[in-house]
Amino acid sequence: MKNRDITPDHNRKERVGFDEAILCETKTIAQISAILEHADVCGNRLLLTRLEDIQYKALPKQYRERIDYEKISCTAYFGKVLEPKEKAHVAVVTAGTSDVSVSREAVRTLRYYGVGCAEIYDVGVAGLWRLLDRVEEIRAFPIVIAVAGMDAALPSVLGGLIASVVIAVPTSSGYGVVAGGDTALRAILTSCAPGVVVVNIDNGYGAACAALRVLNVRNAEEITFPTGAE
Amino acid sequence: MKNRDITPDHNRKERVGFDEAILCETKTIAQISAILEHADVCGNRLLLTRLEDIQYKALPKQYRERIDYEKISCTAYFGKVLEPKEKAHVAVVTAGTSDVSVSREAVRTLRYYGVGCAEIYDVGVAGLWRLLDRVEEIRAFPIVIAVAGMDAALPSVLGGLIASVVIAVPTSSGYGVVAGGDTALRAILTSCAPGVVVVNIDNGYGAACAALRVLNVRNAEEITFPTGAE
Amino acid sequence: MKNRDITPDHNRKERVGFDEAILCETKTIAQISAILEHADVCGNRLLLTRLEDIQYKALPKQYRERIDYEKISCTAYFGKVLEPKEKAHVAVVTAGTSDVSVSREAVRTLRYYGVGCAEIYDVGVAGLWRLLDRVEEIRAFPIVIAVAGMDAALPSVLGGLIASVVIAVPTSSGYGVVAGGDTALRAILTSCAPGVVVVNIDNGYGAACAALRVLNVRNAEEITFPTGAE
Amino acid sequence: MKNRDITPDHNRKERVGFDEAILCETKTIAQISAILEHADVCGNRLLLTRLEDIQYKALPKQYRERIDYEKISCTAYFGKVLEPKEKAHVAVVTAGTSDVSVSREAVRTLRYYGVGCAEIYDVGVAGLWRLLDRVEEIRAFPIVIAVAGMDAALPSVLGGLIASVVIAVPTSSGYGVVAGGDTALRAILTSCAPGVVVVNIDNGYGAACAALRVLNVRNAEEITFPTGAE
Amino acid sequence: MKNRDITPDHNRKERVGFDEAILCETKTIAQISAILEHADVCGNRLLLTRLEDIQYKALPKQYRERIDYEKISCTAYFGKVLEPKEKAHVAVVTAGTSDVSVSREAVRTLRYYGVGCAEIYDVGVAGLWRLLDRVEEIRAFPIVIAVAGMDAALPSVLGGLIASVVIAVPTSSGYGVVAGGDTALRAILTSCAPGVVVVNIDNGYGAACAALRVLNVRNAEEITFPTGAE
Amino acid sequence: MKNRDITPDHNRKERVGFDEAILCETKTIAQISAILEHADVCGNRLLLTRLEDIQYKALPKQYRERIDYEKISCTAYFGKVLEPKEKAHVAVVTAGTSDVSVSREAVRTLRYYGVGCAEIYDVGVAGLWRLLDRVEEIRAFPIVIAVAGMDAALPSVLGGLIASVVIAVPTSSGYGVVAGGDTALRAILTSCAPGVVVVNIDNGYGAACAALRVLNVRNAEEITFPTGAE
Amino acid sequence: MKNRDITPDHNRKERVGFDEAILCETKTIAQISAILEHADVCGNRLLLTRLEDIQYKALPKQYRERIDYEKISCTAYFGKVLEPKEKAHVAVVTAGTSDVSVSREAVRTLRYYGVGCAEIYDVGVAGLWRLLDRVEEIRAFPIVIAVAGMDAALPSVLGGLIASVVIAVPTSSGYGVVAGGDTALRAILTSCAPGVVVVNIDNGYGAACAALRVLNVRNAEEITFPTGAE
Amino acid sequence: MKNRDITPDHNRKERVGFDEAILCETKTIAQISAILEHADVCGNRLLLTRLEDIQYKALPKQYRERIDYEKISCTAYFGKVLEPKEKAHVAVVTAGTSDVSVSREAVRTLRYYGVGCAEIYDVGVAGLWRLLDRVEEIRAFPIVIAVAGMDAALPSVLGGLIASVVIAVPTSSGYGVVAGGDTALRAILTSCAPGVVVVNIDNGYGAACAALRVLNVRNAEEITFPTGAE
Repeated sequence: MKNRDITPDHNRKERVGFDEAILCETKTIAQISAILEHADVCGNRLLLTRLEDIQYKALPKQYRERIDYEKISCTAYFGKVLEPKEKAHVAVVTAGTSDVSVSREAVRTLRYYGVGCAEIYDVGVAGLWRLLDRVEEIRAFPIVIAVAGMDAALPSVLGGLIASVVIAVPTSSGYGVVAGGDTALRAILTSCAPGVVVVNIDNGYGAACAALRVLNVRNAEEITFPTGAE
Repeated sequence: MKNRDITPDHNRKERVGFDEAILCETKTIAQISAILEHADVCGNRLLLTRLEDIQYKALPKQYRERIDYEKISCTAYFGKVLEPKEKAHVAVVTAGTSDVSVSREAVRTLRYYGVGCAEIYDVGVAGLWRLLDRVEEIRAFPIVIAVAGMDAALPSVLGGLIASVVIAVPTSSGYGVVAGGDTALRAILTSCAPGVVVVNIDNGYGAACAALRVLNVRNAEEITFPTGAE
Repeated sequence: MKNRDITPDHNRKERVGFDEAILCETKTIAQISAILEHADVCGNRLLLTRLEDIQYKALPKQYRERIDYEKISCTAYFGKVLEPKEKAHVAVVTAGTSDVSVSREAVRTLRYYGVGCAEIYDVGVAGLWRLLDRVEEIRAFPIVIAVAGMDAALPSVLGGLIASVVIAVPTSSGYGVVAGGDTALRAILTSCAPGVVVVNIDNGYGAACAALRVLNVRNAEEITFPTGAE
Repeated sequence: MKNRDITPDHNRKERVGFDEAILCETKTIAQISAILEHADVCGNRLLLTRLEDIQYKALPKQYRERIDYEKISCTAYFGKVLEPKEKAHVAVVTAGTSDVSVSREAVRTLRYYGVGCAEIYDVGVAGLWRLLDRVEEIRAFPIVIAVAGMDAALPSVLGGLIASVVIAVPTSSGYGVVAGGDTALRAILTSCAPGVVVVNIDNGYGAACAALRVLNVRNAEEITFPTGAE
Repeated sequence: MKNRDITPDHNRKERVGFDEAILCETKTIAQISAILEHADVCGNRLLLTRLEDIQYKALPKQYRERIDYEKISCTAYFGKVLEPKEKAHVAVVTAGTSDVSVSREAVRTLRYYGVGCAEIYDVGVAGLWRLLDRVEEIRAFPIVIAVAGMDAALPSVLGGLIASVVIAVPTSSGYGVVAGGDTALRAILTSCAPGVVVVNIDNGYGAACAALRVLNVRNAEEITFPTGAE
Repeated sequence: MKNRDITPDHNRKERVGFDEAILCETKTIAQISAILEHADVCGNRLLLTRLEDIQYKALPKQYRERIDYEKISCTAYFGKVLEPKEKAHVAVVTAGTSDVSVSREAVRTLRYYGVGCAEIYDVGVAGLWRLLDRVEEIRAFPIVIAVAGMDAALPSVLGGLIASVVIAVPTSSGYGVVAGGDTALRAILTSCAPGVVVVNIDNGYGAACAALRVLNVRNAEEITFPTGAE
Repeated sequence: MKNRDITPDHNRKERVGFDEAILCETKTIAQISAILEHADVCGNRLLLTRLEDIQYKALPKQYRERIDYEKISCTAYFGKVLEPKEKAHVAVVTAGTSDVSVSREAVRTLRYYGVGCAEIYDVGVAGLWRLLDRVEEIRAFPIVIAVAGMDAALPSVLGGLIASVVIAVPTSSGYGVVAGGDTALRAILTSCAPGVVVVNIDNGYGAACAALRVLNVRNAEEITFPTGAE
Repeated sequence: MKNRDITPDHNRKERVGFDEAILCETKTIAQISAILEHADVCGNRLLLTRLEDIQYKALPKQYRERIDYEKISCTAYFGKVLEPKEKAHVAVVTAGTSDVSVSREAVRTLRYYGVGCAEIYDVGVAGLWRLLDRVEEIRAFPIVIAVAGMDAALPSVLGGLIASVVIAVPTSSGYGVVAGGDTALRAILTSCAPGVVVVNIDNGYGAACAALRVLNVRNAEEITFPTGAE
């Protein structure tokens, strides 16, 4: 029996509508390189997340040079990127400038799949006019990813103002009872604005995938809906 | 100045696509009656959630008799219910029989808005064949509400098998480290299956509202999407 | 040596500007009666908090009849109540109807000391217009007690809109990650709106006392301020 | 659509009585520089908090030279500082020498707004005479900011001795069950001394803002108080 | 092999200086009766703790009548009680009247072993003069059991004022962040007053046993101390 | 009396079936060297765990050279290693590549005792086919060590598919609500698949020891089983 | 589509070596009855756990009379019970009398599958001789289920004394920092005695299932072990 | 008013029987130097705790040279040390070698006050014979400081074997559910061995101070005990 550290999930695209991404923060350079090599051989493209600058720089030159790396979000594209579609379907909204690394991870993930985004930043509710000024603009997007830390009041307020799908991402920035984002997470989950959904703390990638699922649904013409009956 | 305990959110439907529901568990009979009276006067219909049987029975007769009460989910309809649409767009899937009160709250909420559901119950992963037997059936629904307690492995496994929107609801049933559903919640948030979203523990109502937001998006023809650009 | 279960704090009024109140929830009927007897003998008036209806009814008749009991807030006045001052200095604002028992405890405490309050209820941010409609009215009060549970976004939003002292009271109502009010507490403490202060969960009494301290300051003409120097 | 990372809250002074401060710990040098540039162009002054020495030194020379940086509190003033008023209205009291960085943040924030402070340090209750020796001095200030870590008994004892507004700041220093200040926070919230209010752990800035709100109230002659009535 | 539910620890007195006590709250009436019968047969005396009134009343008459039951502390003596020694060696001090059931458990345990106690109650630090008035009296006792809930500042302040052994007992009474006594426990453990020791929440019995260990040491003439060397 | 920092547990092998291992992460180089010297003198072999590369390199040359060090698992063998037995009795299965350091610790521990392992890696349930493809292979092993982080759904699913002993090891990798592996631990403990047992987070060594206990039992012919009777 | 609340896991016995048990605490009488009816029709036997006495008494007579109910453990057998095997393979050991309901659940589960147990109770380490007296007896069993609450030191001490498989069950009894068994659970997981495994708090059923897995392995002659190789 | 960062507690010796110690971990070099200078001028001696090697080396030469620094415990003596008394009154017992830095802090604190200690190390219960071999030796000491991490079963077992005062110190070493010593702390507090007391995690200094309080009591001839009466 041969030891295989890596078992790629080769048909995820067919099953869930998008490929497997590679979470790099817990992987060694050797493991990441092996994964890139495997993708290269198979002719697959790859999305890498949480690839620290220091990891990126340590990659073998032949892979590093073929990677589109973005430092703020710590994301990388290996292989070809889809052409952006004509219209932006997703608005990525942040409460503060500290949330940008997370929101950019969402944006980069969506771009990787050819989905356009509008970025509307620093509109937290402490200065409510900033959000109210732009709420009509935000309302026009069918999907809104709302990124917020601290008390994360933004998704709550937004969820009460618009009818779009609101996917909230709590962020970990801050100190004291912020508790690494746990307070933001809990605040969103107990939001009085109904139907706001949430993903793991700092998980911009996960929020983008949730948006992709909504777009899967929207675009799917072939889905045949059975009649529901109790 | 007059003291007003209640300030109904009268135009929520226009803003977010569905009305305000009345969470009854923390309200007195007097408060619930006042809310019903107000709705009656205005000619509004109402959805009541977490209305315990004992509360329901204590309501004034003129309201109790005009209410469609369902005991398992502790939900009630006041006023007319929308005609169910021809097709079920949402599958509500549970891991175990203990999750039924929560899943039924989701179903009842969706029905209130005329959205048909299919209920697929007791397909937790401990007996994996139960889920695999029905996965093709589930896959056909654009939206899946997955209700699970304990370790809540069901949404994880499901999220890896289908491309639909997966809205997970952790439930509180169980003992020991179940911790009132906190373990289930955290397990879902850390799921390896990307794009699974979550609502508060036992919040079937919230999951249904999230589904309504997705259907808002799907049905909206009038939404004009601006072009996204960084 | 004689055992003394009770040692009244007889000069608290002189030290901190208001009397000791009696927290009843952890006291026996015998203990509460002894405290009332002591106050009666000394000619003191008393504020009792968290006096359950069942406790109130179990008190000896001679005390029960001389008590002004309010059931929603579980507060009682023993002895004479101060004449309300001409103007209301404090606005007590709640996010939802479930917060009324807590807000009323604050109101009753303030009334006991002759401080008038305006009660502005059910203006949580899920229906933002409810708050915006009344923000100018609220702004006119030098002190605002903001009572909110769940994600407690109200004090955050309010703190960003007005210059008054904002004393927030998290409440325990709700389920799941509400965690008995801990989420609301933590959300307020991490609010982006600066200078919002907080008291213990459900502690309407404490918020009222904090307001009294602010009024102490405001009213005190005799305070001589030393010159500050580093 | 252009991506805007920063949306300054330009009229906060008018709304809440003091400007927006810039929390630097989660911002990049590029972001801080952009904010300074914006303020420079607009002719605004700025308060920066949690600006680490290493961040300060990395700022572009033209901004670094125009900044009044204080290392212990990690605060910086950009632009002109208000003239200190004749009298100190706030006493900043600490339990131990480890609390100085936090208390100094409060002091620096107040100074930025022209509010004088007296600093009374290292008077924790383990050596009770240290506090009792100075309690008359402290009592003379209308507002007391009490900074304490570990078991934070200082605000409790102080709150029982004086009638001033007591704003407590729990600090994170210590080890074991100190839990990053959570024990101090919880101890203050459960203090038997009524009317003590609290802000986030290590949040000297927030305590100062709360003090500013009290001074807003004190100084405001133009506020018209409506008559309170139930 | 015969199933034996109960294995009494018959020589604990010889090993640790005091007998095994019977914690009743988790035992059935049948189990408690069996233990009493066993003690009766062996001619042993017994201390029972956390024996609820309802349990006491349900005991078989022949045991109930031979028991000295005290309702506030839920303790019972079976068999003869030691003559109290001439001098009280232990002061049991409480912060509030809500702490009496716990302090009385300590007192009753000590009495069972013939150790006299002085009870000094309701001297919490919110009214500091109450403690300062009696500190000289307390100082005279070699051992002080300090019982306090909420923020439990009493043991901290006391530990800084006296040289006696201070055994603190956190209590669970209160609401909100009191967290069933966890805040009090943590506050005591982080006390700045050095050498204060603590036992489990509400564990008056354990505090008394700790006092007995100190008295073991004090009274033991036969202990031969080896020379210490590193 | 001489101070002895180290008291080796010299007859553990006889008592529990395997030797004491040396947990190095909390030991100084001096302490580890002293332990190695003692083993050397006694002619004992040793297993060292959590020996960081930097610690390994700092060991005195005479020991370092006689050590078989493996970097990924941070384990080292000192002295002779048992011959592997002909058949592998244990399958070590991981959910992802991030779990390899933990699984390798289990493998290295088992190898030290001459127990062969099969390593089956990266078969987490997000790509369920990866596990289903290999389930028959896994089923053939009497003992399965299942290593998984995040939501740790792998042991749950596996426990429902096979009859072998399943020893789960939660791992700490990940971010947000992963909480250092606590979520994985809790998810496993609440697994619906009955009879799955668990060890501490990241404790590959402990899982291997549990497997050794099962093999103790399996191999022991000399154990005489008494007849059970209630 | 028909709603099916219950999907029995009909071939669990073939997959994992024992049947599905029915956890009753979260089920209604109607649900339990439906499950019994289904089993009756299929000719299956059933194990019911956490069936409260009040639930048992509410069952329809035709089922209640055919059930072997045991009140202490809240377990019930429906259908025929396997003949106990000649030898007891499992020792169930408890620390105190409060742990009996949990240990009995384990015993009853094992009996249901024809596995004999010896019960050795009340041998907690506070009276260490109680354990040492019986350790040779315990050592003779290949599998030991150790049930303990509070600090759960019993499994630790036992794990250091014997070579058997030690399956620990933390229990929830006690007060204060016991935290519903969480302290016991954590203490076992951090035990210095290697190879002790653990199941959920109060989960006697799970411990028995783990024992069944070990016995599966022991008894299986048909398992063919592949050769392990890295 | 002058700012005074430091307010030494100059008469603590008279009040509590031992001087103030200086906790250095949260102090700057400047602050520590100022404290040493103050002590030098006053002719006081000082105990410094948690003085990291790097801090020690950064002290001004004139102080560094007059300090007796011990690296393992991070403690330092400034000024003269009391002559050790003839007999060791305290046994400091540890469970493992990882606990030495904490136990040494206790030893160094006691030595500073002239109290001799015996150190008995690495006698954790996983190898129970190690403890049983030395229990008679330990029993001879009136005070035992028991230092243990992980599950901290040592103080429990010891508390059941001896009549001495047992002061337990939980330590933070370990990983996973060790939770920085919180598990050890909770395990000790729930110990079944009655009368074991505890101090903060890693607080060897506090345990020594508690021992000093017991010795205060033991040595005090002048204490006059009042007669106890209820």
